[in-house]
Amino acid sequence: MKNYIIKDEWNIIEEGFDASLGKISESIFSIGNGKMGQRANFEEQYSGDSFQGSYVAGIYYPDKTRVGWWKNGYPAFSHKVINATNWIGLNIDVNGEALDLGRVNVTEFHRMLNMKEGYLKRTFIAELNTGIRVKITATRFCSIVDKEAGTICYEITPLNLATSLKISVYLDGDVKNEDANYDEKFWIERAKKTFQQGALLTMETKRTGFWLTTAMQYAMQIDGEIIVAKEKQILDEKFVAQEVDVILEPEQTLRIYKYAVNLSSENYPKELMENHAQQILQKIVKKGYDQLKIEQAAAWKNKWEESDVLIEGDIAAQQAIRFNIFQLYQTYTGEDARLNIGPKGFTGEKYGGVTYWDTEAYCLPFYLATANQQVARNLLIYRYKHLEKAYENARMLGFSNGAALYPMVTIDGTECHNEWEITFEELHRNGAIAFAIYNYIRYTGEHSYLEQYGLEVLVGIARFWAQRVSWSAAKQQYMLLGITGPNEYENNVNNNWYTNTIAVWCLKYAREAIIYVKESNPDRYEDIAKKLDFREDELSCWKAIEENMYYPEDQKLGIFLQQDGYLDKEQILVKNLPLSERPLNQKWSWDRILRSCFIKQADVLQGLYFFEERYSDEVIRRNYDFYEARTVHESSLSPCVHAILAAKLGDEKRAYEFYLRTARLDLDDYNNDTEDGLHITSMAGSWMSIVEGFAGLRVRENTLHFKPFIPEGWQSYTFRIRFRNTIFQVKVSKHEISITNQSSEERDVLVHNKHVKVPAYGTFKGELVGCQQIV
Amino acid sequence: MKNYIIKDEWNIIEEGFDASLGKISESIFSIGNGKMGQRANFEEQYSGDSFQGSYVAGIYYPDKTRVGWWKNGYPAFSHKVINATNWIGLNIDVNGEALDLGRVNVTEFHRMLNMKEGYLKRTFIAELNTGIRVKITATRFCSIVDKEAGTICYEITPLNLATSLKISVYLDGDVKNEDANYDEKFWIERAKKTFQQGALLTMETKRTGFWLTTAMQYAMQIDGEIIVAKEKQILDEKFVAQEVDVILEPEQTLRIYKYAVNLSSENYPKELMENHAQQILQKIVKKGYDQLKIEQAAAWKNKWEESDVLIEGDIAAQQAIRFNIFQLYQTYTGEDARLNIGPKGFTGEKYGGVTYWDTEAYCLPFYLATANQQVARNLLIYRYKHLEKAYENARMLGFSNGAALYPMVTIDGTECHNEWEITFEELHRNGAIAFAIYNYIRYTGEHSYLEQYGLEVLVGIARFWAQRVSWSAAKQQYMLLGITGPNEYENNVNNNWYTNTIAVWCLKYAREAIIYVKESNPDRYEDIAKKLDFREDELSCWKAIEENMYYPEDQKLGIFLQQDGYLDKEQILVKNLPLSERPLNQKWSWDRILRSCFIKQADVLQGLYFFEERYSDEVIRRNYDFYEARTVHESSLSPCVHAILAAKLGDEKRAYEFYLRTARLDLDDYNNDTEDGLHITSMAGSWMSIVEGFAGLRVRENTLHFKPFIPEGWQSYTFRIRFRNTIFQVKVSKHEISITNQSSEERDVLVHNKHVKVPAYGTFKGELVGCQQIV
Repeated sequence: MKNYIIKDEWNIIEEGFDASLGKISESIFSIGNGKMGQRANFEEQYSGDSFQGSYVAGIYYPDKTRVGWWKNGYPAFSHKVINATNWIGLNIDVNGEALDLGRVNVTEFHRMLNMKEGYLKRTFIAELNTGIRVKITATRFCSIVDKEAGTICYEITPLNLATSLKISVYLDGDVKNEDANYDEKFWIERAKKTFQQGALLTMETKRTGFWLTTAMQYAMQIDGEIIVAKEKQILDEKFVAQEVDVILEPEQTLRIYKYAVNLSSENYPKELMENHAQQILQKIVKKGYDQLKIEQAAAWKNKWEESDVLIEGDIAAQQAIRFNIFQLYQTYTGEDARLNIGPKGFTGEKYGGVTYWDTEAYCLPFYLATANQQVARNLLIYRYKHLEKAYENARMLGFSNGAALYPMVTIDGTECHNEWEITFEELHRNGAIAFAIYNYIRYTGEHSYLEQYGLEVLVGIARFWAQRVSWSAAKQQYMLLGITGPNEYENNVNNNWYTNTIAVWCLKYAREAIIYVKESNPDRYEDIAKKLDFREDELSCWKAIEENMYYPEDQKLGIFLQQDGYLDKEQILVKNLPLSERPLNQKWSWDRILRSCFIKQADVLQGLYFFEERYSDEVIRRNYDFYEARTVHESSLSPCVHAILAAKLGDEKRAYEFYLRTARLDLDDYNNDTEDGLHITSMAGSWMSIVEGFAGLRVRENTLHFKPFIPEGWQSYTFRIRFRNTIFQVKVSKHEISITNQSSEERDVLVHNKHVKVPAYGTFKGELVGCQQIV
Repeated sequence: MKNYIIKDEWNIIEEGFDASLGKISESIFSIGNGKMGQRANFEEQYSGDSFQGSYVAGIYYPDKTRVGWWKNGYPAFSHKVINATNWIGLNIDVNGEALDLGRVNVTEFHRMLNMKEGYLKRTFIAELNTGIRVKITATRFCSIVDKEAGTICYEITPLNLATSLKISVYLDGDVKNEDANYDEKFWIERAKKTFQQGALLTMETKRTGFWLTTAMQYAMQIDGEIIVAKEKQILDEKFVAQEVDVILEPEQTLRIYKYAVNLSSENYPKELMENHAQQILQKIVKKGYDQLKIEQAAAWKNKWEESDVLIEGDIAAQQAIRFNIFQLYQTYTGEDARLNIGPKGFTGEKYGGVTYWDTEAYCLPFYLATANQQVARNLLIYRYKHLEKAYENARMLGFSNGAALYPMVTIDGTECHNEWEITFEELHRNGAIAFAIYNYIRYTGEHSYLEQYGLEVLVGIARFWAQRVSWSAAKQQYMLLGITGPNEYENNVNNNWYTNTIAVWCLKYAREAIIYVKESNPDRYEDIAKKLDFREDELSCWKAIEENMYYPEDQKLGIFLQQDGYLDKEQILVKNLPLSERPLNQKWSWDRILRSCFIKQADVLQGLYFFEERYSDEVIRRNYDFYEARTVHESSLSPCVHAILAAKLGDEKRAYEFYLRTARLDLDDYNNDTEDGLHITSMAGSWMSIVEGFAGLRVRENTLHFKPFIPEGWQSYTFRIRFRNTIFQVKVSKHEISITNQSSEERDVLVHNKHVKVPAYGTFKGELVGCQQIV
């Protein structure tokens, strides 16, 4: 837990230089544009503790799996998004001494991430060991307009003495991953060159053969006057630079613009990459830094108009939710169905930049509501494209052709994980992927997605479950044995209630989808059935499983049981667990966690959240009370579901507490792990806590429902959501909810279960409680 | 499965050179003496596929743990017995061409392990590329008299042409482990030197700082005449050699004797190791090869007199059982309580040469019956010496002081294993260690072992179980949750019947041991109680657990259940499993194995074996029939327990089949893994199958019991066992059992539950069935 980020509505601010916070700030102040991302490493050399990270979407390396004890079925390689060519590098020598914040006296250090306009700015005064004082202002951003471009404006002003500077503007491809399993470097050099005020470096990943061409150009001004200095070209192994000498009088300011582009062979033919890189570089150089920055601000303005959540009366909450939204949109923008969202986005190496079920379960609702439909759709199509590999993955584990098991962790559809209890047994991911199709169609109304892409995925998933269940002759019911649920503090259990529930739901939804497509588009149905070799007698098998599935529950307590035998554990409540023993995952040995009743994230509650229409509030409340008391929330994905359920059950105080646990998780380094990177996917949970929790948003039968309340300390909160070509703005204040309809048609919504009309281009206002219309 | 070893009663024989079998033979033809061991690598250089292994007991290296996903509680280091200085090396250049079986034409290759006299002999004719044909005879052994010494007699005879030989007699410390987790080399050089016809090399292990001094001396004869050639000394990094040139006429024979000693700093002060090494070397050089070989044969004769099993009428079985006994005694001889038995002995790197529960559960009975009492006793004291580390190990997992959890895998008492489901959950090892104390006292009658060493261990183990059980409020019974039993094809189960059973047995036995010591030696009891801070109210807690333990069982089937929920699995029998799917551990993914009903080794049966007095034959039969049908025996430790139970239940045919599966496991490379090393600990299972299975040996109430039968194809089998200062020879033939008593007192034994008298220095003979005495 830290508390050094200065609260501000639109900016993330750090004052003063504290090297011990360096890696945390490198994560928090990360910039990105969905296609590339850059940790907040310094441009100039730095001898202090730093975690270098520059990532290009879609470029990965199959690192050889490291494992202590091999289990059959483990993948031999583990794909990871990798640290790529350092394009921000800009070394400064001041009268022969390196400007290095690890070695000079730093004052007036100020760092700011401007979320409104999408840039990072850092200023400081360095007193070098020679006594020279220089003032530095460095601003940079990854353009969300020109998505292959990053730009830096770096200003140096000597304050007290005339200064002779040696400046090296460079690209460095000799980078490594801290998480490399065998200390291997992943890149080899393909080509490099320098040109007038610029250079270019093409690197290739070993094994996968991705090419990355990085081109840079710089320009310099002294006090606004363009200067051109004599250059020295440096071409080293995996490294290119231009070095220039500049002499400054005191108070003169040298401004260096560095323009860089990163092109991936995923998007260009390899033989043309250099050409394209230079063309795109020229285009952005021509636009120039100021114009790029204006366009950046304008583009972010558009993003915020669709996705902002405005909170009045709670600056910490305001800063947090904007930070979460900002980082989500820095990570994924949804134009490219080959890309997805890693739990750390582009802000670190942990979890390998790869995709988990987080995307479907947590991120999808955010993108559905805050971006155009294609964005969420691309997240679905990403999985559709991996269907062949999901078949292969299932085959590897002994399932027959046609059963699809999506990987626990992946970039290109291949399984990248190797812990047997997770890789082979945490199967609920297959359910979340099916649920996302349902959720997408429920939200968008685009039923034709089923016939286009959805049905094939659903059949593969249903076939998997149909093979994975086993028949208990003893109980005369179907079961799922050897399962790890979303609560990873239990491994290899029998009949995880959540997994049994979502498995059967998948079978049922797949069955309904087949019937729907068969009726709505018989020709397409025939094509799919032929392609999948689908026989309708499979449906009766699925139905038999639906009808005869076993679900663990306890009649006396009136709760669903997390798994068989859960009540045999010693039932201790979290409130009785000494604080000194937490977090359990740091204080207890793994076996002790496993055999305790404590829960990382409550998967029964996850199921009640997904399928809440099926259960009465009483059932939800009993389960909520039971499981919440045993949940330690040591997954960043846990609190949001609790926030939403607490809100639904009217426990507004708890709902707000849960919101806070996710929202400022990284800004306050709550779990002491922000230095590894940000918790990108759980950021969507913060948004869900407000919109689905506080405002009670649901989509039921093609209509928006709200059940709003407002946290005690807030004056109001306002958010915008897209829903079927309308943008709604919803404002909840102390006593009032107002819903504005930005479309040309009147819309019907429900507030506290009452139908209300929101006029075209108009606003409905109602009392917060009871929802009497206010005229 | 291979079938290339030639059957012979006393020898293991390979005819013909097949490089593809090289690594398998390197394992099978291993030699050792309990203090060091040597795979059957060639003395001369070899470019073919080879797995080099030379091991010195007690010298280990803490290799940095390799793990994919770290779990709290894992040890940071994993100790392993390591490949040490190559002392057999002897390179031969023939007219400038290396004698290398990978590069020359080899004929008349013959390799023999003479088990009766304890040496390895290899002969072959090599036709070099120059056309020269040389005959080689190489004989070597590790002395079981001079336990630090190994000796080689290497003869070279050119057959067709005069030959100029260059011979390099060397010690090479620049060796590595194939299983090094990070490709690290474990040794650094401390000292080296050469002297007249000899050399010395002292190596030190990194981190652990063990020193190993290896000294060698050679002597040469041509046709029996001693020659001394001009030497060239080679001192390279971690390498010393003496090179000599010798010219031979056709049919002349050069004989090279190489004497080597390996001294460990575990046994000598480091500063004196060189001196001692040279002294011991001189001693064995002075004895000379022929004398050493005579002494070796005599010493092995003594060993065989105590431990041989003679089988008439089945040469394959005869060869197999002798091979098993021979390898056991090459691995462990029991003089040094710091040493123990690794599953691969000194024949490979797999399992790191470290100690598992195999020692207590499988090896102890063999050593109890075939060696003097001190040998088995030292195996127990080994664990006593590790008690402090067992406390520490338990503390690391969150147990309080005074609870002892012995490691799953260890050399010096430190846990060396890192698979959570094994390391943290396969707790039955703690039971086997307590059971070994009981078994030792039952066999030897040495009750005072309890007060000397046993009680402290028992209390530590009992305290562990008392803390590890949990109370199920739902069932109002004690349980053991999160357990892996000996059947490792189930992980993290609740209430493994075997573990629950042995845990309660431990509590009860510890309680009885306390009462016994308190009565028999109150002063000593007071000392122990004080040392352990033992309070007698702990006894009532243990008793409560004994009385209220939950045991899973199925009333309808009348069987104990392997664990909770076992009958929810699909019940398929092994006989219905296609052969193409076996072994499961190679054909199935891990999760599929886990959720199947198939059993690696049946732990319910292990429990019935340990505690058979408690259960009626009917109960044993029902459980045997149920579990045997589901057991795939993919642990080498599995078949022997089945053999013993099958024998007990009168199923003689099956008992014999199970015996065969262990006995020739390595000779026939049954599991395709002999190249990794031999299955040393399961070899004790072969002996158990004959003695406890076929002959039905038990010790009950201080008396030997026999219930013999003879496998169909055998004429007779004869074994010797020590029992309380008597050596009995037991011979079972087609219709008769004869028991010879080699002591000066008449002995009472039971045969088929009838008391019979065996006269002093005399023999009892009875009918095999019914046991009517034959006069």
